Amino acid sequence: MIRAVVLGSAAGGGFPQWNSNAPACRRARAGDPAALARSQASLAVSADGASWYLLNASPDLRQQILATPCLHAREGLRSTPIAGVLLTGGEVDAVTGLLTLRERQPLRLVAADAVHDLLDSNPIFEALSREVVPRQRVPLRQWFPLLDAAGAPTGLSAMLFPVPGKVPLYMEPAPGETLALEEEEDGGTVGVALEAGGRRMFYIPGCAAMTPALAELLRGAALVFFDGTLWRDDEMILAGLGPKTGQRMGHMSVGGAGGTIAAFAGLGVERKILIHMNNSNPVLLDDSPERAEAEAAGWQVAFDGMAVRL
Amino acid sequence: MIRAVVLGSAAGGGFPQWNSNAPACRRARAGDPAALARSQASLAVSADGASWYLLNASPDLRQQILATPCLHAREGLRSTPIAGVLLTGGEVDAVTGLLTLRERQPLRLVAADAVHDLLDSNPIFEALSREVVPRQRVPLRQWFPLLDAAGAPTGLSAMLFPVPGKVPLYMEPAPGETLALEEEEDGGTVGVALEAGGRRMFYIPGCAAMTPALAELLRGAALVFFDGTLWRDDEMILAGLGPKTGQRMGHMSVGGAGGTIAAFAGLGVERKILIHMNNSNPVLLDDSPERAEAEAAGWQVAFDGMAVRL
Repeated sequence: MIRAVVLGSAAGGGFPQWNSNAPACRRARAGDPAALARSQASLAVSADGASWYLLNASPDLRQQILATPCLHAREGLRSTPIAGVLLTGGEVDAVTGLLTLRERQPLRLVAADAVHDLLDSNPIFEALSREVVPRQRVPLRQWFPLLDAAGAPTGLSAMLFPVPGKVPLYMEPAPGETLALEEEEDGGTVGVALEAGGRRMFYIPGCAAMTPALAELLRGAALVFFDGTLWRDDEMILAGLGPKTGQRMGHMSVGGAGGTIAAFAGLGVERKILIHMNNSNPVLLDDSPERAEAEAAGWQVAFDGMAVRL
Repeated sequence: MIRAVVLGSAAGGGFPQWNSNAPACRRARAGDPAALARSQASLAVSADGASWYLLNASPDLRQQILATPCLHAREGLRSTPIAGVLLTGGEVDAVTGLLTLRERQPLRLVAADAVHDLLDSNPIFEALSREVVPRQRVPLRQWFPLLDAAGAPTGLSAMLFPVPGKVPLYMEPAPGETLALEEEEDGGTVGVALEAGGRRMFYIPGCAAMTPALAELLRGAALVFFDGTLWRDDEMILAGLGPKTGQRMGHMSVGGAGGTIAAFAGLGVERKILIHMNNSNPVLLDDSPERAEAEAAGWQVAFDGMAVRL
């Protein structure tokens, strides 16, 4: 069995975002029950319900742990059910929470080379002593067991795989041009596959396009958490929130002809959950037509505290 | 007038600390009203109630802003009443929250050289674009106006001053020896004095000793927030939580003959508030003898959301 708990379900900045006065953020800040506040995206996963791995460490991690009883210290004076952290990226919203995990608590820190290189270049992360928190580099496209700090297995296996990601600025197309995407990138954007007891799930919080290879990997999966950042590619521009398209930020849209809902239509995935929603995405609002459209297409929208068993 | 709002009142790790199963942390986690949970220390200060400066940016900053209406975005699509951040140190619990303030929102980032050097050596803080968030280096022991990103005054003036801080490991005394403290340090540990409208307050979240110079500076002050990290110097050792004394960590104790309460006894400070309490400090508990002793000596114990007008 795999258990997954959604620690946070929003994109970087969370919902509401600290400096946003847009209508949806105002609703969330006012406690509107149809505009549920959400912290920044992260999952806790476990094979046995006792030992947990975090998928990314968001800036909200301290509050996420407080809000999640299965992650509370329960033994001795200092302890944690958190065996380790598996990072899918090196962005601020994926790694900042590592700084919450200081206090000389044994954990394992697992990521691909690109992310470890980024951590290595920032001395502040030495707050996690390498003697106590071993850093494990893992290759892409290979399964490996998720271990605790002492090397004991947690019962979970994982594989990191590259997905199409952010387009370098110089590749951005002129208006009217089609965007060229690399089929597979260099590991700057990765998804994670997890297995335990013969069950398999995916966590892909950022993905710029559904390639044929990715579609084959996901086909028939029991559970996929997938990039729900934006509903439309020009959502930020239309809302007056910024000049960037979703493609430019490395995110395919949920709606529309080339969007996520359409791309998953033939894949036979049993349970599909949108995660990493930007505060501009109307799917965050329980009463929006976009939410109705997503649910009608068989998608759920993740919320903080959502628990899934597989 | 100066307004101050306590955004967080606990030392690094907060209360409860994520990996602590000690009795007080269990009480806080269980919602015991006499063991109020507290986030990591920071103040918001303002001369006019409209434009605010943060004193330090704790890892809990996103939740602290959400919990503090005067810091909410209220204009346009993106805005903030936060004009800037003044840092007293470069520790994880003082700077991590800067990463929450990304999103190309104009702010001013003010600190002494030692702290700026530390930020400069960590590329992750480039998430705050220097074009949008100017970094201002200020000298110690000199008053300067706190400005917003565009250079407009907020009505607050500030001065950073060195206080006795952490003792280098090699200076740690052998058992039975007396600890030698430098009278004034190199700016690694600083306090801040603030003025507006002829009123003056101090924020000193870490201080290893009351020197004659510091006592003269604080004498007769209207308001002092002071280092409440530990009640006794050997508190962590007695509780089985670690091998370090308070002196070794750069914090004088609140209680006892050489402690903070005794050191302030003759200074005539009008309002004295303990802040930056470690989760091991019994003064955190409303029903502890130590809380009663502090209150009997004219001290208050800061809590998240505490508002003070001066």
